[in-house]
Amino acid sequence: MADRTVYFLSDGTGITAETFGNSILAQFAVKPRHVRRPFIDTAEKAREVVHEINAIAESGAPRAIVFATLVNREVLALVREQCQAMVLDMFGMFIAPLEEEFALKSSHRVGRFGDAAKSQEYQDRIEAINFSLAHDDGQSARNLDTADVILVGVSRSGKTPTSLYLAMQHGIKAANYPLIPEDFERGRLPEALKVHKSKCFGLTIDPDRLSQIRNERRPGSKYADFGNCRYEVAEAESMMKREGIAWLSSTHKSIEEIATTILRDIRPDRLVY
Amino acid sequence: MADRTVYFLSDGTGITAETFGNSILAQFAVKPRHVRRPFIDTAEKAREVVHEINAIAESGAPRAIVFATLVNREVLALVREQCQAMVLDMFGMFIAPLEEEFALKSSHRVGRFGDAAKSQEYQDRIEAINFSLAHDDGQSARNLDTADVILVGVSRSGKTPTSLYLAMQHGIKAANYPLIPEDFERGRLPEALKVHKSKCFGLTIDPDRLSQIRNERRPGSKYADFGNCRYEVAEAESMMKREGIAWLSSTHKSIEEIATTILRDIRPDRLVY
Repeated sequence: MADRTVYFLSDGTGITAETFGNSILAQFAVKPRHVRRPFIDTAEKAREVVHEINAIAESGAPRAIVFATLVNREVLALVREQCQAMVLDMFGMFIAPLEEEFALKSSHRVGRFGDAAKSQEYQDRIEAINFSLAHDDGQSARNLDTADVILVGVSRSGKTPTSLYLAMQHGIKAANYPLIPEDFERGRLPEALKVHKSKCFGLTIDPDRLSQIRNERRPGSKYADFGNCRYEVAEAESMMKREGIAWLSSTHKSIEEIATTILRDIRPDRLVY
Repeated sequence: MADRTVYFLSDGTGITAETFGNSILAQFAVKPRHVRRPFIDTAEKAREVVHEINAIAESGAPRAIVFATLVNREVLALVREQCQAMVLDMFGMFIAPLEEEFALKSSHRVGRFGDAAKSQEYQDRIEAINFSLAHDDGQSARNLDTADVILVGVSRSGKTPTSLYLAMQHGIKAANYPLIPEDFERGRLPEALKVHKSKCFGLTIDPDRLSQIRNERRPGSKYADFGNCRYEVAEAESMMKREGIAWLSSTHKSIEEIATTILRDIRPDRLVY
Protein backbone atom coordinates (compact mmCIF):
# COMPACT_ATOMS: atom_id res chain seq x y z
CA MET A 1 0.00 0.00 0.00
CA ALA A 2 3.06 2.27 -0.36
CA ASP A 3 1.47 3.53 -3.56
CA ARG A 4 -0.27 6.12 -1.38
CA THR A 5 1.46 9.35 -0.49
CA VAL A 6 0.42 11.41 2.50
CA TYR A 7 1.43 15.08 2.62
CA PHE A 8 1.67 17.14 5.78
CA LEU A 9 1.36 20.73 4.63
CA SER A 10 1.78 23.67 6.95
CA ASP A 11 2.63 27.35 7.00
CA GLY A 12 4.46 26.55 10.25
CA THR A 13 6.72 23.59 10.97
CA GLY A 14 4.06 21.00 10.11
CA ILE A 15 5.00 19.01 13.20
CA THR A 16 1.50 19.27 14.62
CA ALA A 17 -0.04 18.16 11.33
CA GLU A 18 2.35 15.25 11.11
CA THR A 19 1.97 14.04 14.69
CA PHE A 20 -1.79 14.21 14.61
CA GLY A 21 -2.03 12.84 11.07
CA ASN A 22 0.14 9.89 12.07
CA SER A 23 -2.03 9.07 15.05
CA ILE A 24 -5.02 8.93 12.70
CA LEU A 25 -3.20 6.89 10.05
CA ALA A 26 -2.18 4.44 12.80
CA GLN A 27 -5.85 3.41 12.86
CA PHE A 28 -5.51 1.96 9.36
CA ALA A 29 -3.61 -1.02 8.01
CA VAL A 30 -1.78 1.14 5.48
CA LYS A 31 1.86 2.06 5.00
CA PRO A 32 1.84 5.22 2.92
CA ARG A 33 4.85 7.31 1.95
CA HIS A 34 5.11 10.41 4.17
CA VAL A 35 6.10 13.84 2.91
CA ARG A 36 6.28 16.86 5.25
CA ARG A 37 6.37 20.28 3.61
CA PRO A 38 6.89 23.00 6.20
CA PHE A 39 6.77 26.80 5.91
CA ILE A 40 4.35 26.89 2.94
CA ASP A 41 3.39 30.48 3.62
CA THR A 42 3.16 32.12 0.20
CA ALA A 43 1.05 31.45 -2.88
CA GLU A 44 4.24 30.76 -4.82
CA LYS A 45 5.40 28.00 -2.48
CA ALA A 46 1.87 26.61 -2.42
CA ARG A 47 1.73 26.41 -6.21
CA GLU A 48 4.99 24.49 -6.22
CA VAL A 49 3.79 21.86 -3.80
CA VAL A 50 0.37 21.63 -5.47
CA HIS A 51 2.18 20.91 -8.72
CA GLU A 52 4.13 18.12 -7.02
CA ILE A 53 0.97 16.65 -5.48
CA ASN A 54 -0.95 16.79 -8.74
CA ALA A 55 1.81 14.96 -10.55
CA ILE A 56 0.94 11.94 -8.40
CA ALA A 57 -2.69 11.82 -9.49
CA GLU A 58 -1.66 12.52 -13.09
CA SER A 59 0.76 9.58 -13.05
CA GLY A 60 -2.20 7.25 -12.49
CA ALA A 61 -1.33 6.45 -8.84
CA PRO A 62 -4.05 6.88 -6.21
CA ARG A 63 -4.47 10.54 -5.33
CA ALA A 64 -2.49 11.82 -2.35
CA ILE A 65 -3.96 12.57 1.04
CA VAL A 66 -3.12 16.03 2.34
CA PHE A 67 -3.22 16.87 6.05
CA ALA A 68 -3.14 20.65 6.04
CA THR A 69 -2.60 23.02 8.95
CA LEU A 70 -2.69 26.26 7.01
CA VAL A 71 -3.67 29.49 8.69
CA ASN A 72 -2.92 31.73 5.72
CA ARG A 73 -6.26 32.02 3.90
CA GLU A 74 -4.79 32.60 0.46
CA VAL A 75 -2.57 29.52 0.70
CA LEU A 76 -5.40 27.40 2.10
CA ALA A 77 -7.79 28.46 -0.67
CA LEU A 78 -5.20 27.66 -3.32
CA VAL A 79 -4.52 24.20 -1.87
CA ARG A 80 -8.19 23.38 -1.44
CA GLU A 81 -9.13 24.49 -4.93
CA GLN A 82 -6.20 23.23 -6.98
CA CYS A 83 -5.00 20.02 -5.33
CA GLN A 84 -6.01 16.81 -7.07
CA ALA A 85 -5.94 15.09 -3.70
CA MET A 86 -8.02 14.43 -0.63
CA VAL A 87 -7.42 17.62 1.35
CA LEU A 88 -8.12 17.49 5.09
CA ASP A 89 -8.23 21.06 6.39
CA MET A 90 -7.33 20.25 9.97
CA PHE A 91 -7.83 23.74 11.37
CA GLY A 92 -10.97 24.55 9.43
CA MET A 93 -12.86 21.61 10.87
CA PHE A 94 -12.41 22.98 14.38
CA ILE A 95 -12.24 26.74 13.91
CA ALA A 96 -15.84 27.27 12.78
CA PRO A 97 -17.52 25.46 15.70
CA LEU A 98 -15.12 27.13 18.15
CA GLU A 99 -15.81 30.60 16.72
CA GLU A 100 -19.45 29.94 17.49
CA GLU A 101 -18.72 28.57 20.97
CA PHE A 102 -16.45 31.45 21.95
CA ALA A 103 -18.52 34.02 20.04
CA LEU A 104 -15.17 35.25 18.75
CA LYS A 105 -13.45 35.38 15.37
CA SER A 106 -10.20 33.46 15.04
CA SER A 107 -7.04 35.43 14.37
CA HIS A 108 -5.49 33.31 11.60
CA ARG A 109 -2.15 33.63 13.31
CA VAL A 110 0.49 31.26 11.97
CA GLY A 111 2.02 28.70 14.28
CA ARG A 112 1.89 27.82 17.91
CA PHE A 113 5.03 29.88 18.53
CA GLY A 114 4.23 33.50 17.82
CA ASP A 115 7.28 35.03 19.42
CA ALA A 116 8.30 31.72 20.87
CA ALA A 117 11.81 32.58 21.92
CA LYS A 118 10.46 35.31 24.15
CA SER A 119 7.67 33.52 26.01
CA GLN A 120 8.08 32.47 29.61
CA GLU A 121 6.90 28.96 28.79
CA TYR A 122 9.60 28.66 26.17
CA GLN A 123 12.33 29.99 28.48
CA ASP A 124 11.21 27.46 31.09
CA ARG A 125 11.63 24.63 28.60
CA ILE A 126 15.16 25.71 27.73
CA GLU A 127 16.07 26.12 31.38
CA ALA A 128 14.63 22.69 32.15
CA ILE A 129 16.70 21.10 29.35
CA ASN A 130 19.87 22.65 30.76
CA PHE A 131 18.94 21.49 34.25
CA SER A 132 18.24 17.94 33.09
CA LEU A 133 21.54 17.78 31.22
CA ALA A 134 23.47 19.05 34.24
CA HIS A 135 21.73 16.48 36.44
CA ASP A 136 21.95 13.51 34.11
CA ASP A 137 23.14 10.24 35.60
CA GLY A 138 23.78 11.63 39.08
CA GLN A 139 26.38 14.07 37.69
CA SER A 140 25.50 16.67 40.24
CA ALA A 141 23.66 16.62 43.53
CA ARG A 142 23.70 20.41 43.57
CA ASN A 143 20.32 22.11 43.33
CA LEU A 144 18.41 18.84 43.59
CA ASP A 145 16.03 20.80 45.78
CA THR A 146 14.95 22.75 42.68
CA ALA A 147 14.25 19.56 40.69
CA ASP A 148 10.59 18.84 39.94
CA VAL A 149 11.23 15.12 39.58
CA ILE A 150 14.20 12.81 40.22
CA LEU A 151 14.17 9.59 38.22
CA VAL A 152 15.97 6.64 39.79
CA GLY A 153 16.77 3.17 38.46
CA VAL A 154 19.53 0.90 37.27
CA SER A 155 21.79 1.92 34.39
CA ARG A 156 19.95 1.78 31.02
CA SER A 157 16.43 1.60 32.46
CA GLY A 158 15.37 4.64 30.41
CA LYS A 159 16.07 7.51 32.82
CA THR A 160 18.00 9.80 30.49
CA PRO A 161 15.61 9.94 27.52
CA THR A 162 12.66 10.30 29.89
CA SER A 163 14.31 13.19 31.78
CA LEU A 164 15.09 15.01 28.55
CA TYR A 165 11.59 14.46 27.23
CA LEU A 166 10.01 15.79 30.43
CA ALA A 167 12.20 18.88 30.15
CA MET A 168 11.72 19.47 26.46
CA GLN A 169 8.00 18.79 26.18
CA HIS A 170 6.78 19.92 29.56
CA GLY A 171 9.44 22.26 30.98
CA ILE A 172 9.89 19.87 33.91
CA LYS A 173 13.24 20.00 35.69
CA ALA A 174 13.94 16.29 35.75
CA ALA A 175 17.15 15.05 37.34
CA ASN A 176 18.12 11.39 37.16
CA TYR A 177 20.20 9.33 39.50
CA PRO A 178 21.44 5.79 38.96
CA LEU A 179 21.05 2.94 41.43
CA ILE A 180 24.33 1.02 41.32
CA PRO A 181 25.71 -2.21 42.84
CA GLU A 182 27.35 -0.23 45.68
CA ASP A 183 23.91 1.06 46.70
CA PHE A 184 22.57 -2.50 46.76
CA GLU A 185 25.47 -3.70 48.91
CA ARG A 186 24.88 -0.90 51.39
CA GLY A 187 21.16 -1.58 51.13
CA ARG A 188 20.39 2.12 51.14
CA LEU A 189 19.35 4.84 48.71
CA PRO A 190 22.20 7.09 47.58
CA GLU A 191 22.78 9.70 50.31
CA ALA A 192 21.91 12.64 48.02
CA LEU A 193 18.39 11.32 47.46
CA LYS A 194 17.38 10.82 51.10
CA VAL A 195 15.86 14.27 51.63
CA HIS A 196 14.22 14.28 48.20
CA LYS A 197 12.40 10.95 48.38
CA SER A 198 8.99 12.49 47.80
CA LYS A 199 9.94 13.58 44.30
CA CYS A 200 11.74 10.40 43.33
CA PHE A 201 10.14 8.15 40.73
CA GLY A 202 11.59 4.78 39.77
CA LEU A 203 12.06 3.15 36.38
CA THR A 204 12.52 -0.56 36.12
CA ILE A 205 12.90 -2.89 33.16
CA ASP A 206 12.73 -6.62 32.36
CA PRO A 207 16.14 -8.16 33.03
CA ASP A 208 16.31 -9.86 29.63
CA ARG A 209 15.60 -6.61 27.81
CA LEU A 210 18.15 -4.84 30.01
CA SER A 211 20.78 -7.45 29.26
CA GLN A 212 20.10 -7.04 25.54
CA ILE A 213 20.47 -3.23 25.72
CA ARG A 214 23.63 -3.41 27.82
CA ASN A 215 25.14 -6.01 25.49
CA GLU A 216 24.88 -3.51 22.66
CA ARG A 217 27.07 -1.15 24.69
CA ARG A 218 29.52 -3.57 26.31
CA PRO A 219 29.22 -6.99 24.68
CA GLY A 220 30.00 -9.94 26.93
CA SER A 221 30.65 -7.81 30.03
CA LYS A 222 29.58 -8.60 33.57
CA TYR A 223 27.56 -5.35 33.31
CA ALA A 224 25.50 -6.88 30.51
CA ASP A 225 25.32 -10.43 31.89
CA PHE A 226 21.74 -11.65 32.30
CA GLY A 227 22.32 -12.94 35.84
CA ASN A 228 23.80 -9.61 36.89
CA CYS A 229 20.93 -7.69 35.26
CA ARG A 230 18.42 -9.90 37.08
CA TYR A 231 20.23 -9.24 40.37
CA GLU A 232 20.37 -5.45 39.88
CA VAL A 233 16.72 -5.20 38.83
CA ALA A 234 15.52 -7.30 41.79
CA GLU A 235 17.64 -5.25 44.22
CA ALA A 236 16.47 -1.95 42.75
CA GLU A 237 12.82 -2.99 42.91
CA SER A 238 13.03 -4.11 46.51
CA MET A 239 14.86 -0.92 47.47
CA MET A 240 12.16 1.21 45.85
CA LYS A 241 9.46 -0.84 47.55
CA ARG A 242 11.21 -0.46 50.92
CA GLU A 243 11.62 3.29 50.46
CA GLY A 244 8.07 3.83 49.26
CA ILE A 245 9.12 5.11 45.83
CA ALA A 246 6.54 4.62 43.07
CA TRP A 247 7.88 3.03 39.91
CA LEU A 248 6.91 1.63 36.55
CA SER A 249 8.46 -0.70 34.01
CA SER A 250 9.79 0.98 30.89
CA THR A 251 10.04 -2.31 28.97
CA HIS A 252 6.93 -1.93 26.82
CA LYS A 253 6.36 1.79 27.14
CA SER A 254 7.36 4.74 24.98
CA ILE A 255 9.08 7.80 26.47
CA GLU A 256 5.80 9.69 26.01
CA GLU A 257 3.85 7.10 27.98
CA ILE A 258 6.44 6.96 30.76
CA ALA A 259 6.56 10.76 31.04
CA THR A 260 2.78 11.06 31.13
CA THR A 261 2.47 8.39 33.82
CA ILE A 262 5.11 10.11 35.97
CA LEU A 263 3.32 13.45 35.70
CA ARG A 264 -0.04 11.93 36.48
CA ASP A 265 1.32 10.07 39.51
CA ILE A 266 3.67 12.54 41.14
CA ARG A 267 3.07 15.92 39.52
CA PRO A 268 -0.66 15.95 38.58
CA ASP A 269 -0.50 19.74 38.98
CA ARG A 270 1.63 19.84 35.82
CA LEU A 271 -1.25 18.40 33.79
CA VAL A 272 -3.37 21.41 34.73
CA TYR A 273 -2.25 24.94 33.86
CA MET B 1 -11.47 34.52 29.88
CA ALA B 2 -9.90 32.00 32.35
CA ASP B 3 -13.43 31.02 33.27
CA ARG B 4 -13.21 28.52 30.40
CA THR B 5 -11.73 25.10 30.95
CA VAL B 6 -10.39 23.03 28.10
CA TYR B 7 -9.98 19.29 28.61
CA PHE B 8 -7.66 17.08 26.59
CA LEU B 9 -9.06 13.60 26.97
CA SER B 10 -7.35 10.53 25.61
CA ASP B 11 -7.10 6.79 26.06
CA GLY B 12 -3.39 7.26 25.29
CA THR B 13 -1.08 9.97 26.60
CA GLY B 14 -3.24 12.82 25.31
CA ILE B 15 -0.12 14.58 24.04
CA THR B 16 -1.41 14.60 20.46
CA ALA B 17 -4.77 16.00 21.58
CA GLU B 18 -3.06 18.68 23.62
CA THR B 19 -0.53 19.75 20.99
CA PHE B 20 -3.09 19.94 18.25
CA GLY B 21 -5.74 21.47 20.49
CA ASN B 22 -3.31 24.17 21.56
CA SER B 23 -2.43 25.07 18.00
CA ILE B 24 -6.15 25.58 17.35
CA LEU B 25 -6.72 27.55 20.54
CA ALA B 26 -3.76 29.78 19.59
CA GLN B 27 -6.04 31.15 16.87
CA PHE B 28 -8.29 32.70 19.50
CA ALA B 29 -7.75 35.54 21.95
CA VAL B 30 -8.64 33.32 24.90
CA LYS B 31 -6.64 32.08 27.90
CA PRO B 32 -8.53 29.03 29.14
CA ARG B 33 -7.46 26.72 31.92
CA HIS B 34 -5.94 23.51 30.52
CA VAL B 35 -6.54 20.05 31.94
CA ARG B 36 -4.97 16.95 30.38
CA ARG B 37 -6.48 13.62 31.39
CA PRO B 38 -4.45 10.74 29.93
CA PHE B 39 -5.12 6.98 29.88
CA ILE B 40 -8.94 7.26 30.06
CA ASP B 41 -9.41 3.74 28.73
CA THR B 42 -12.26 2.26 30.78
CA ALA B 43 -15.89 3.27 31.28
CA GLU B 44 -15.16 3.73 34.97
CA LYS B 45 -12.37 6.25 34.40
CA ALA B 46 -14.54 7.98 31.80
CA ARG B 47 -17.44 8.34 34.23
CA GLU B 48 -15.10 9.96 36.76
CA VAL B 49 -13.84 12.57 34.35
CA VAL B 50 -17.34 13.22 32.93
CA HIS B 51 -18.49 13.89 36.48
CA GLU B 52 -15.68 16.40 36.92
CA ILE B 53 -16.46 18.11 33.60
CA ASN B 54 -20.18 18.28 34.34
CA ALA B 55 -19.52 19.93 37.69
CA ILE B 56 -18.22 22.93 35.73
CA ALA B 57 -21.44 23.43 33.77
CA GLU B 58 -23.47 22.79 36.89
CA SER B 59 -21.56 25.48 38.79
CA GLY B 60 -22.88 28.03 36.32
CA ALA B 61 -19.51 28.59 34.57
CA PRO B 62 -19.39 28.34 30.77
CA ARG B 63 -19.37 24.69 29.71
CA ALA B 64 -15.98 23.12 29.16
CA ILE B 65 -14.48 22.36 25.76
CA VAL B 66 -13.28 18.77 25.37
CA PHE B 67 -10.68 17.80 22.79
CA ALA B 68 -10.99 14.02 22.70
CA THR B 69 -8.68 11.50 21.06
CA LEU B 70 -10.50 8.37 22.14
CA VAL B 71 -10.22 5.18 20.16
CA ASN B 72 -12.14 3.00 22.59
CA ARG B 73 -15.73 3.11 21.32
CA GLU B 74 -17.38 2.55 24.67
CA VAL B 75 -15.43 5.38 26.30
CA LEU B 76 -16.07 7.69 23.36
CA ALA B 77 -19.81 7.00 23.39
CA LEU B 78 -19.99 7.65 27.11
CA VAL B 79 -18.12 10.96 26.80
CA ARG B 80 -20.17 12.12 23.82
CA GLU B 81 -23.49 11.24 25.40
CA GLN B 82 -22.96 12.30 28.98
CA CYS B 83 -20.64 15.32 28.91
CA GLN B 84 -22.30 18.68 29.46
CA ALA B 85 -19.57 20.24 27.35
CA MET B 86 -18.59 20.96 23.78
CA VAL B 87 -17.02 17.64 22.76
CA LEU B 88 -14.70 17.69 19.76
CA ASP B 89 -14.12 14.09 18.66
CA MET B 90 -10.78 14.66 16.97
CA PHE B 91 -10.39 11.18 15.52
CA GLY B 92 -14.02 10.76 14.45
CA MET B 93 -13.90 13.80 12.21
CA PHE B 94 -11.13 12.24 10.14
CA ILE B 95 -11.71 8.51 10.43
CA ALA B 96 -14.98 8.37 8.48
CA PRO B 97 -13.75 10.19 5.35
CA LEU B 98 -10.51 8.19 5.42
CA GLU B 99 -12.35 4.89 5.72
CA GLU B 100 -14.11 5.84 2.53
CA GLU B 101 -10.92 7.01 0.82
CA PHE B 102 -8.95 3.87 1.73
CA ALA B 103 -12.01 1.59 1.34
CA LEU B 104 -10.85 0.09 4.65
CA LYS B 105 -12.25 -0.06 8.15
CA SER B 106 -10.16 1.57 10.89
CA SER B 107 -8.74 -0.65 13.59
CA HIS B 108 -9.57 1.43 16.69
CA ARG B 109 -6.11 0.73 18.02
CA VAL B 110 -5.14 2.91 20.97
CA GLY B 111 -2.18 5.23 20.64
CA ARG B 112 0.53 5.97 18.20
CA PHE B 113 2.85 3.57 20.01
CA GLY B 114 1.39 0.08 19.74
CA ASP B 115 4.44 -1.83 20.86
CA ALA B 116 6.54 1.28 20.83
CA ALA B 117 9.54 0.03 22.70
CA LYS B 118 10.05 -2.65 20.07
CA SER B 119 9.77 -0.68 16.84
CA GLN B 120 12.82 0.18 14.78
CA GLU B 121 11.78 3.81 14.60
CA TYR B 122 11.66 3.95 18.36
CA GLN B 123 15.06 2.29 18.78
CA ASP B 124 16.49 4.78 16.33
CA ARG B 125 15.20 7.68 18.41
CA ILE B 126 16.78 6.29 21.58
CA GLU B 127 20.07 5.64 19.79
CA ALA B 128 20.00 9.16 18.37
CA ILE B 129 19.46 10.66 21.84
CA ASN B 130 22.45 8.73 23.18
CA PHE B 131 24.53 9.84 20.21
CA SER B 132 23.56 13.48 20.62
CA LEU B 133 24.37 13.40 24.33
CA ALA B 134 27.76 11.81 23.70
CA HIS B 135 28.50 14.44 21.04
CA ASP B 136 27.22 17.47 22.89
CA ASP B 137 29.43 20.55 22.92
CA GLY B 138 32.29 18.94 21.02
CA GLN B 139 32.75 16.34 23.76
CA SER B 140 33.80 13.70 21.30
CA ALA B 141 35.05 13.78 17.74
CA ARG B 142 34.72 10.01 17.59
CA ASN B 143 32.13 8.66 15.14
CA LEU B 144 31.38 12.08 13.71
CA ASP B 145 31.25 10.26 10.40
CA THR B 146 28.03 8.58 11.57
CA ALA B 147 26.40 11.92 12.51
CA ASP B 148 23.49 13.03 10.34
CA VAL B 149 24.03 16.67 11.21
CA ILE B 150 26.70 18.66 13.10
CA LEU B 151 25.52 21.95 14.55
CA VAL B 152 28.16 24.64 14.97
CA GLY B 153 28.05 28.06 16.59
CA VAL B 154 29.21 30.12 19.55
CA SER B 155 28.47 29.01 23.10
CA ARG B 156 24.74 29.48 23.98
CA SER B 157 23.51 29.92 20.44
CA GLY B 158 20.98 27.09 20.86
CA LYS B 159 22.97 24.08 19.64
CA THR B 160 22.27 21.70 22.54
CA PRO B 161 18.46 21.93 22.75
CA THR B 162 18.24 21.75 18.96
CA SER B 163 20.45 18.65 18.80
CA LEU B 164 18.38 16.90 21.44
CA TYR B 165 15.14 17.85 19.75
CA LEU B 166 16.34 16.54 16.39
CA ALA B 167 17.27 13.27 18.07
CA MET B 168 14.14 12.88 20.15
CA GLN B 169 11.55 13.95 17.61
CA HIS B 170 13.16 12.78 14.38
CA GLY B 171 15.74 10.14 15.31
CA ILE B 172 18.45 12.34 13.80
CA LYS B 173 21.99 11.81 15.08
CA ALA B 174 22.85 15.43 15.73
CA ALA B 175 26.28 16.28 17.11
CA ASN B 176 27.15 19.82 18.11
CA TYR B 177 30.48 21.56 18.18
CA PRO B 178 31.26 24.98 19.63
CA LEU B 179 33.12 27.75 17.80
CA ILE B 180 35.38 29.33 20.40
CA PRO B 181 37.74 32.33 20.55
CA GLU B 182 40.76 30.08 19.79
CA ASP B 183 39.10 29.09 16.49
CA PHE B 184 38.61 32.76 15.59
CA GLU B 185 42.25 33.57 16.37
CA ARG B 186 43.42 30.72 14.16
CA GLY B 187 40.81 31.78 11.61
CA ARG B 188 39.97 28.17 10.87
CA LEU B 189 37.20 25.69 11.60
CA PRO B 190 38.03 23.21 14.39
CA GLU B 191 40.17 20.46 12.88
CA ALA B 192 37.60 17.71 13.62
CA LEU B 193 34.99 19.40 11.43
CA LYS B 194 37.07 19.82 8.27
CA VAL B 195 36.13 16.53 6.64
CA HIS B 196 32.49 16.84 7.72
CA LYS B 197 31.76 20.31 6.39
CA SER B 198 28.91 19.15 4.20
CA LYS B 199 26.83 18.13 7.18
CA CYS B 200 27.62 21.16 9.30
CA PHE B 201 24.86 23.66 9.96
CA GLY B 202 25.43 26.91 11.82
CA LEU B 203 23.38 28.65 14.48
CA THR B 204 23.86 32.29 15.17
CA ILE B 205 22.12 34.70 17.53
CA ASP B 206 21.79 38.47 18.10
CA PRO B 207 24.70 39.63 20.26
CA ASP B 208 22.45 41.45 22.74
CA ARG B 209 20.30 38.37 23.26
CA LEU B 210 23.46 36.26 23.60
CA SER B 211 24.90 38.63 26.18
CA GLN B 212 21.65 38.44 28.15
CA ILE B 213 21.66 34.62 28.13
CA ARG B 214 25.34 34.41 29.08
CA ASN B 215 24.85 36.94 31.88
CA GLU B 216 22.32 34.59 33.48
CA ARG B 217 25.06 31.95 33.64
CA ARG B 218 28.13 34.04 34.47
CA PRO B 219 27.05 37.53 35.48
CA GLY B 220 29.52 40.30 34.71
CA SER B 221 32.06 37.98 33.03
CA LYS B 222 34.06 38.70 29.88
CA TYR B 223 32.21 35.69 28.43
CA ALA B 224 28.90 37.56 28.84
CA ASP B 225 30.16 41.04 27.95
CA PHE B 226 28.23 42.59 25.06
CA GLY B 227 31.37 43.65 23.17
CA ASN B 228 32.78 40.15 23.42
CA CYS B 229 29.48 38.59 22.30
CA ARG B 230 29.40 40.94 19.31
CA TYR B 231 32.97 39.97 18.43
CA GLU B 232 32.32 36.21 18.70
CA VAL B 233 29.10 36.37 16.68
CA ALA B 234 30.72 38.45 13.91
CA GLU B 235 33.72 36.10 13.75
CA ALA B 236 31.52 32.99 13.73
CA GLU B 237 29.33 34.37 10.96
CA SER B 238 32.26 35.31 8.77
CA MET B 239 33.87 31.92 9.36
CA MET B 240 30.67 30.14 8.33
CA LYS B 241 30.35 32.35 5.27
CA ARG B 242 33.96 31.66 4.29
CA GLU B 243 33.55 27.92 4.76
CA GLY B 244 30.23 27.78 2.90
CA ILE B 245 28.27 26.55 5.91
CA ALA B 246 24.56 27.42 5.87
CA TRP B 247 23.24 29.01 9.04
CA LEU B 248 20.23 30.65 10.62
CA SER B 249 19.61 32.91 13.57
CA SER B 250 18.00 31.24 16.57
CA THR B 251 17.06 34.58 18.18
CA HIS B 252 13.37 34.62 17.27
CA LYS B 253 12.87 30.95 16.49
CA SER B 254 11.63 28.01 18.53
CA ILE B 255 13.56 24.75 18.68
CA GLU B 256 10.87 23.21 16.47
CA GLU B 257 11.30 25.89 13.82
CA ILE B 258 15.10 25.66 13.91
CA ALA B 259 15.01 21.86 13.64
CA THR B 260 12.54 21.92 10.76
CA THR B 261 14.60 24.48 8.85
CA ILE B 262 17.77 22.43 9.30
CA LEU B 263 16.07 19.29 8.01
CA ARG B 264 14.56 21.09 5.06
CA ASP B 265 17.89 22.68 4.12
CA ILE B 266 20.43 19.95 4.67
CA ARG B 267 18.49 16.70 5.16
CA PRO B 268 15.33 17.06 3.03
CA ASP B 269 15.36 13.27 2.71
CA ARG B 270 14.40 13.10 6.41
CA LEU B 271 11.12 14.90 5.69
CA VAL B 272 10.14 12.06 3.34
CA TYR B 273 9.88 8.47 4.59
